[in-house]
Formats: sequence, C-alpha cells, structure tokens
Amino acid sequence: MKPEPPAPSGSQQALDLLGKVLIDEGSRVLVETPSHLGALQAFSVYRPQFVSVATDDDGLVPGSVENAAIGARLLYALPNFQNPTGRSLPAPRRRELVETCARHNVPLIEDDPYGALSYKGAPLPKILNMRPGGVIYMGSFSEVLTPGIRLGYVVAPLPLLRRLELAKQATDLHTSQLTQMAAHEVIRDGFPGRHIPTIRALYADRCQAMQDAMAASFPAGSSWTRPEGGMLIWVTLPGHIDAMQLLDQAIAAGVAFVPGAPFYANAPETNTLRLSFVTVSPERIREGIAILGTLIAALA
Amino acid sequence: MKPEPPAPSGSQQALDLLGKVLIDEGSRVLVETPSHLGALQAFSVYRPQFVSVATDDDGLVPGSVENAAIGARLLYALPNFQNPTGRSLPAPRRRELVETCARHNVPLIEDDPYGALSYKGAPLPKILNMRPGGVIYMGSFSEVLTPGIRLGYVVAPLPLLRRLELAKQATDLHTSQLTQMAAHEVIRDGFPGRHIPTIRALYADRCQAMQDAMAASFPAGSSWTRPEGGMLIWVTLPGHIDAMQLLDQAIAAGVAFVPGAPFYANAPETNTLRLSFVTVSPERIREGIAILGTLIAALA
Repeated sequence: MKPEPPAPSGSQQALDLLGKVLIDEGSRVLVETPSHLGALQAFSVYRPQFVSVATDDDGLVPGSVENAAIGARLLYALPNFQNPTGRSLPAPRRRELVETCARHNVPLIEDDPYGALSYKGAPLPKILNMRPGGVIYMGSFSEVLTPGIRLGYVVAPLPLLRRLELAKQATDLHTSQLTQMAAHEVIRDGFPGRHIPTIRALYADRCQAMQDAMAASFPAGSSWTRPEGGMLIWVTLPGHIDAMQLLDQAIAAGVAFVPGAPFYANAPETNTLRLSFVTVSPERIREGIAILGTLIAALA
Repeated sequence: MKPEPPAPSGSQQALDLLGKVLIDEGSRVLVETPSHLGALQAFSVYRPQFVSVATDDDGLVPGSVENAAIGARLLYALPNFQNPTGRSLPAPRRRELVETCARHNVPLIEDDPYGALSYKGAPLPKILNMRPGGVIYMGSFSEVLTPGIRLGYVVAPLPLLRRLELAKQATDLHTSQLTQMAAHEVIRDGFPGRHIPTIRALYADRCQAMQDAMAASFPAGSSWTRPEGGMLIWVTLPGHIDAMQLLDQAIAAGVAFVPGAPFYANAPETNTLRLSFVTVSPERIREGIAILGTLIAALA
C-alpha cells in the first residue's frame, strides 16, 4: 500500500515544513525583492541567510538569479500575480530561471496560490512542467475555495515528499480529516469549476475600480503595478513618504493597507505598500482610495 | 479588543510551537524516562540536549529532577496516565516537582491528554493549579472527542501565549475554522459530558481484559504497568528480549505493538514495548495477548 502524501494545513504550513527539511542555519535562500511576508516569516525560524534577488516590472531579473544561484540552498518564487507586487514572470523568464536553477542544482519553490485567478486569457505555463524533478510546486485552496479551512498541497520529488511527511508528523501529525473530507466533497461536486469564473469576474472588476481610483486621486510621483490576476496591487509612494506614517493616518481615517517594508528580506523600501482589492465593493474601493490619495498628497 | 489565543491543531502542534519559541540549539530539556515519542520528535527539530530524568513506578523521581534542573530550559512531563508508561505522578510528587521547578526557574510543561480518562475516583490535582505562572498546560480533544479533527489548547502566561501566537502565524496562520466551529457546536451541545463516562467504562473494561490476559499468558520475568486511566500499558520483557525482533514475529502473526526504544531520549531499553487497549474488543485483546505471550515465551 502506497501511503498518501500528507496535505499541509494551507500553503503557510507547506512553507514551514519546507523550511524545516531544507534550511539549515546560514543556508543561502534566494527570494524575490520584495517577497511574500509569510514565506520570510516561515523560513526565518530556521535562520537562513536571505539573498534578495533583483526584480523589475516583469519579476525576477534572470541575470541576477545567475549571480546569486551559486551555492544557494533554494530559490523561492511566486511567479503568478506575485504577493506582494501582483507581478507575473513572463514565459521566457520562467525558462531562463529553470535552466539557471538546474545548472546550479538549486531547488526552485514555485508558490502558486493565485494561478487560477487570471483575468485575461490563458494562464502562463507552470515552471513545474518545465523541470518536474527540480521544482517544488505549492498550491492552495484558500484563494479559490475558502481561506478558513487551511488546506494546501505540494508537488515534489518523492524523496522530498517522504521527508516532508516525517516533518508533518512531528509538527501536527496530520491535517484535520474533517477539513479534508469537506474539501473533497466540494471538489467532487464541481463547485470550484462554477466558483472560480465568478470570483475571477468579480476580482477583475474590483481591480479595475482600484486602478481607476488611484489614477484619479493619487498625486504625481506615485506609481503602482497593473496585475492581470490575483488579489494585490503594489504602490510606490512619491518623495520617500514613510508608509508606516501614512498607515497611522489612514487607520484614523478608516482605511487600512499593508506597509511594504516587511516584505523585503534585506534593505526595505519604506515608501511602498500593498493593497488588496478583493473583499470590498467598487464603491468602497473608490471611497477608500480617495481618502488615501488625499493623505498621500498632503505628505508628498 | 483582546485577541483570542490561537488553538493549536492538536497537542502535537502545541509541542512543535513550544519547541519553536522555547528551545535553542543545545538547550537542556528535561524529559521523563521514557517520554512521549511525539514530544521527542517535535522538540528534536530544534536540537536540544535532552536530559532523561529518572523515574520509578510513581513516575518522575523528585531527587533526580532536583539534580537535573540547574540551568535547564524546560521540563516536559505527562503526569496523568503517562505516554508511554500509563503511570501517574502522585500528588505529593507533583508538589515537590513544582517547587523544584520554581526554585530553579524552570518552566514546566504539563501535557495532559488523558486527565479526563481516570477509571477510578477523582482525578489527581493539576500541576497548573499549583503554580499558574510557571506551568504551561496542554490539553487535547483527540482522546475525549475524536483524534481526526486535530484540535488542542494551551494554558500559559500571557507573554508566552503572545510568542506562541506569532509562531503559529508563521507555521500555518491558524487552525481550520471548520474544525473549531464543529468542536464548538459539539461541546456546546454537551456531548463530551455524555461521551466521556461511556469511553471511561469501555476503556476500563479493556484495560482489565489486557491485564488479565497478560497475567495468564506472559512468561515469568515479564512485568507491566497497571494504569488507572488513559490508554496505555508499558511492558518490560524478560531476558533482554529485543522488542524489535519480537515485533517482526508479532506482525507476521497478526499482532501489532509499539517497541519501547524510541521513547527514550537517551540510553534506550530495548526490552520494552507499549500496548494500547482502547480500540479493540476484550475478545480480540485476549486473542492478541495470547499470541504475544507465546512468542515472548519462545524468546525468553
């Protein structure tokens, strides 16, 4: 009887378990600039040396990966509608990335919570399919079903899955069977196939509403990303405004966002912030962005 | 608004989180001889130096704790119907233990999955109540409700709970809300109050059946514990029989048990094993123990 690989209790646990089995103190771990805060938090418990790889509007810059890859323990990347920037890595860069990692024998973690949430046309090719034996692919039900159940999955070479299985046992034995059975029923019933198109259309509208509102009210010198899927927009503020200071004022005015600095493994850029557009209506988005625009203009 | 402390996904995760926040590489961690395998596995990821404290038929020997406590990072104990031995620590020893730990400023983890499963009379006093500020108490729903849902709880001083909360977020954000809501409904409905007396009576019968069967079929030189609650009996085999060797033969004959060696943090006693009496009927218990007795007698 072949044992089933264990399901992590959400992507966050997959990150913790991967940190447990792959990272030793001082291991060089390559991450995007900026990177997913949850990954930095999960990995940092195992005391790696984070190496922030340069990015541009198309995500990871291949030449920078080449330079950083020598002797690295792993590369962690979120190629689709990245958290926190919303950027996507174009297909040619994916191929370059996978070749670079293969050449230097660096395992690549492809974290893909938002892949199904593409607003325009076909999704970009999975890096996993370009090099199955060298890529650790992570998926999640949080974004396409519900975040509260904490259920995710990992695709990885079998020897690594065996190590993850032991780490999972030492961590919490297994993920709630009730949760796994509920997810199984909902998936078997075909719910995700009906639900995903609905939320795609909903999120696309809200993303556009936020883009339009920012164009109307953010002062000159502000810039932001234009994601074609996912949940997040990344904003760079003008004149080196400190997003932490802006946050205090914004909260007092009833608007919340996530300051950008904690998403940097090294050298934080304090004039950045992350916006999410998925949980409130376009009306509320317009209202909130207008308030934020006024506060930014006053600080600029 | 006071945030709710997060519920771990079972006691096993509480152990992992406590290891994460309390144990550094080389920290001296005191454990019983033998100790709960799941705790050894969870803690060992954080590379402590385990110190095995001497025990006798009444559990931890107070004088040995006194000697080991100087400079220790924590003491981990399972005072009620211990895993793996089934032994319980008498009330006077609990008081001595708590005083020793207080004197040396050593936090005491009181792991109590089986406390509600006392077959005879009133339960022993919780160590937590003897020194609330210095004891970390762990409870679980696995033994009194169902193990599959993975839900436990920790009682600890507030500053430690805050650190556990951050570790929980980095580990898997939170425990499944579906699971927590289901447990909440079942508890509110009063089910545990009806269920616990039922399983207490059931387990007491099965424990007695196993005790009687061992007395009838285990050869001279075997000895075993006589728990008054919980789920487990600890067996010491005669003539230094290797329990691993016995296990191979037992499995071939259709009987399974857990060999004792992995429960020792140091210096394993290979002629020990752990039996569980809770999941099969008295008839099957008698049948299995008779087979085991024959195999042991042949090796003795």
